[in-house]
Amino acid sequence: MRIAGEMLLGASSVRGTHGTLHAFDPAQNQEIEPAFGAGGAADVERACALAAAAFDAFRSAPHEMRARLLETIAENIAALGDTLVDRAHLESALPKARLEGERARTIGQLKLFASLVRDGRWCGAVLDSALPARTPAPRSDLRAQRIALGPVAVFGASNFPLAFSVAGGDTASALAAGCPVVVKAHPAHLGTSELVGRAIQKAVADLGLPEGVFSLLIGAGNAVGEALVAHPAIKAVGFTGSRRGGLALMAIAAARHEPIPVYAEMSSVNPMFVLPAALAARTEALARGFVDSLTLGVGQFCTNPGLVIALEGPALARFVDTAAGALEGKRAQTMLTAGIAAAYEDGIGERACAPGVTRVADGAASDAHCAARGALFKTCATQFLADAQLQDEIFGPTSLIVGCRDADELLRVAEHLEGQLTATLQIDEDDYALAARLLPTLERKAGRILANGFPTGVEVTYAMVHGGPFPATSDARTTSVGAMAIERFLRPLCYQDLPAALLPAALRDENPLGLWRLRDGELVRR
Amino acid sequence: MRIAGEMLLGASSVRGTHGTLHAFDPAQNQEIEPAFGAGGAADVERACALAAAAFDAFRSAPHEMRARLLETIAENIAALGDTLVDRAHLESALPKARLEGERARTIGQLKLFASLVRDGRWCGAVLDSALPARTPAPRSDLRAQRIALGPVAVFGASNFPLAFSVAGGDTASALAAGCPVVVKAHPAHLGTSELVGRAIQKAVADLGLPEGVFSLLIGAGNAVGEALVAHPAIKAVGFTGSRRGGLALMAIAAARHEPIPVYAEMSSVNPMFVLPAALAARTEALARGFVDSLTLGVGQFCTNPGLVIALEGPALARFVDTAAGALEGKRAQTMLTAGIAAAYEDGIGERACAPGVTRVADGAASDAHCAARGALFKTCATQFLADAQLQDEIFGPTSLIVGCRDADELLRVAEHLEGQLTATLQIDEDDYALAARLLPTLERKAGRILANGFPTGVEVTYAMVHGGPFPATSDARTTSVGAMAIERFLRPLCYQDLPAALLPAALRDENPLGLWRLRDGELVRR
Repeated sequence: MRIAGEMLLGASSVRGTHGTLHAFDPAQNQEIEPAFGAGGAADVERACALAAAAFDAFRSAPHEMRARLLETIAENIAALGDTLVDRAHLESALPKARLEGERARTIGQLKLFASLVRDGRWCGAVLDSALPARTPAPRSDLRAQRIALGPVAVFGASNFPLAFSVAGGDTASALAAGCPVVVKAHPAHLGTSELVGRAIQKAVADLGLPEGVFSLLIGAGNAVGEALVAHPAIKAVGFTGSRRGGLALMAIAAARHEPIPVYAEMSSVNPMFVLPAALAARTEALARGFVDSLTLGVGQFCTNPGLVIALEGPALARFVDTAAGALEGKRAQTMLTAGIAAAYEDGIGERACAPGVTRVADGAASDAHCAARGALFKTCATQFLADAQLQDEIFGPTSLIVGCRDADELLRVAEHLEGQLTATLQIDEDDYALAARLLPTLERKAGRILANGFPTGVEVTYAMVHGGPFPATSDARTTSVGAMAIERFLRPLCYQDLPAALLPAALRDENPLGLWRLRDGELVRR
Repeated sequence: MRIAGEMLLGASSVRGTHGTLHAFDPAQNQEIEPAFGAGGAADVERACALAAAAFDAFRSAPHEMRARLLETIAENIAALGDTLVDRAHLESALPKARLEGERARTIGQLKLFASLVRDGRWCGAVLDSALPARTPAPRSDLRAQRIALGPVAVFGASNFPLAFSVAGGDTASALAAGCPVVVKAHPAHLGTSELVGRAIQKAVADLGLPEGVFSLLIGAGNAVGEALVAHPAIKAVGFTGSRRGGLALMAIAAARHEPIPVYAEMSSVNPMFVLPAALAARTEALARGFVDSLTLGVGQFCTNPGLVIALEGPALARFVDTAAGALEGKRAQTMLTAGIAAAYEDGIGERACAPGVTRVADGAASDAHCAARGALFKTCATQFLADAQLQDEIFGPTSLIVGCRDADELLRVAEHLEGQLTATLQIDEDDYALAARLLPTLERKAGRILANGFPTGVEVTYAMVHGGPFPATSDARTTSVGAMAIERFLRPLCYQDLPAALLPAALRDENPLGLWRLRDGELVRR
């Protein structure tokens, strides 16, 4: 499939006339052909008008049709074969093996949401019988289901060109909920975006769904994205990126005549608490495992372990030495974009100058373009508690080790933390008592708490929560990964005494969809 | 029980020192003793600090304890007997019979949430088994539950001094979720608030729960409420009131360092579509039923039918005549406060001067203080579509009838509407085809769609949705009435490979709480 440099507005391919952009190969430090035409206000308007026009038909199409759409998108992405992986590799410098894994995850996500749509529990069907004999007044027949919010704007992530971009988790969960999607392509992977966008566009057309179910916009700056979030037809926003970017979208959404929810996944340093017994018993293994997690994918994961908290002592000193040695053996690698690499350099430069912070180790240099060397820092808890900037995320392979005098100080460090996507416990049985003291705080701070593992690697399952209190996300009530992500794009709707002929299928007496339903407070499949 | 004019900060009764307030009897047009001392920043700080300190213990207390708290509050409110109803009557001018019904509803809500807490489905327990043999990498054990968001600020409603105030739906659902509650008392029913507040305070003490589970603040202006919403310990806000008030709280919440959800129930005109066959067949009965609903409780319901939409013709003319006659027989009655009565007078005065609007009928005058006479207006669809102010809510017994030339114009009026709490259809079988065309639009606009009834009267059940798109509420994803209201105050939390000894009860293998759980995608009670 040829990359044309075009936007996809419903069924049309449109070359934007508001400037041109090129994708960029960070490994070769050069632009990639072809040029992409950037869109403007009229293109945003057209995509949103098509989405609004498609909404009622799409949300009320049979569940089976939405499930088939998700599966067809998955098939069409698979059919792109090496073309997709090669282009994503060129645009992101991510290894092809990693991108093949990410493609498998993307396909898996689409299939998970297809199965969820068929299952129908997302409908949240509830039926309360009428009580005609109740005194002093009879009670009406009341039935509720959840319906789609409306067209959703999705902003792809720089670090997941497939799994969190055009056909990524936000798009899959929004389509599953019955929401048309308008994607703003990430400028770092324009070609990948067009390839995947065409896979979706073709699926929509092949299934005979309204063209407005999907559009893909390209913007030369922030104007297209801002206009998209401000557009009255858009009813929710999915975003994965920087804290600054997320806050900007939240401000636009809150300032609208009709404010809308923004699901922004932004910033997390993913504290790892290494408790004393585990630290003493598994010092070297933990240190090496930590450095592997820290440098995985050049540290470009939102769940990167950017903070390690432990008690001072000989065991921590050994941990630091081992980690330093392991990091020095890791060569610098090309980051996703020149801008990200420059921001990383700035970030670790500032961190190195922060009072009370020691630079413990650097990764090995390399002559790769836009490359990031690992950087390990250490400070004491007193300093950490005094300097709020020490918990700012630096996107890349860097981490800060915080040494605590005692368990109480370690608990104070935990209490001082901002909201996080994850919190990790390295614990042996002798640590359980301290872990139990720590857990209530971590529950308040994080979306996922893991033991004796590393936070990188986010499974797509029913129980996964990839979310957490601000600033990890803009809305801790949800997750952007896993089955619960569909709930972001639904709202409840109640029908009172509606004649049977007019009731939606999910709420009819005879339960034609075979749903689990809450009938007079009892959960039954009838 | 004596009313002391005090705030309740945890277990303490505190007289505020930032000015004094009196409750006001609108029927007698005079202040009611005693004077209340208003609080300041230090009182907000104390209430919030107590709430934060109570949070971990309260959210992790056994479910049975939270259920008992809700039931004990209900018992303590019932034990207040006539004292409570008499004081609420004095402060609101609402008839005692209505207040007795509202008390029963308040008690019923508390008991519903007690049964919900025991049921445990609100936990949303999900268990995904580990897959140790999976290639290329094993899968971890993943388990998720929903936990409380944190301390919640509640603002009582003027029009429901019991059911949507200190121990109303917001408080009951927040406590059920495990969130401590800080209530800002509504200045129109300070004595009622203190009585109910002491009933809650006593329940918290009797059960040995941390005192910070509940506090009640009094403020002389907006400063106390604003400081409460801005306080870092507060993690969500429940509000029922005006659009202006709700928007102000939303702005404060969005401007915080950590933005928080605001559940504001604000403004709705509750359109009633009277379709042709029903209009012709039941003209007089519908007109009389409509006027009864319109004037119920002096029109002071958020679900008051403020808009009637029908096709022009002889049947509509008869409907208008009958409604006018019925309204003229309804005497003016005292409103909740002098301020609300004045705003109503202003509102109908402006409406009467709006271009293209005819005043069809007035209610009968009376010499009651702060009284509102019903007011019925009529306009044509062209005018309604041209003047956005005609869909602004005027709080009180007034409604606007919109005559449409044909079905297409009626559909355009529906599409033109802002978000609503309810939309009503008056339909006979011959109207079903038109109703089916109308329903997709109403689904997008409203939280509850009802047929052949009137929107006033909101049942507290599992299926009830008292919510809807902006400006009906600030967050259409939820309801403020009914069982689903608990979901507003919860967020998901995932545990990965946590040792059994540290897992919360809801997620242990042996299912000690006997919950319905999603195990590897299957809903089972084990």
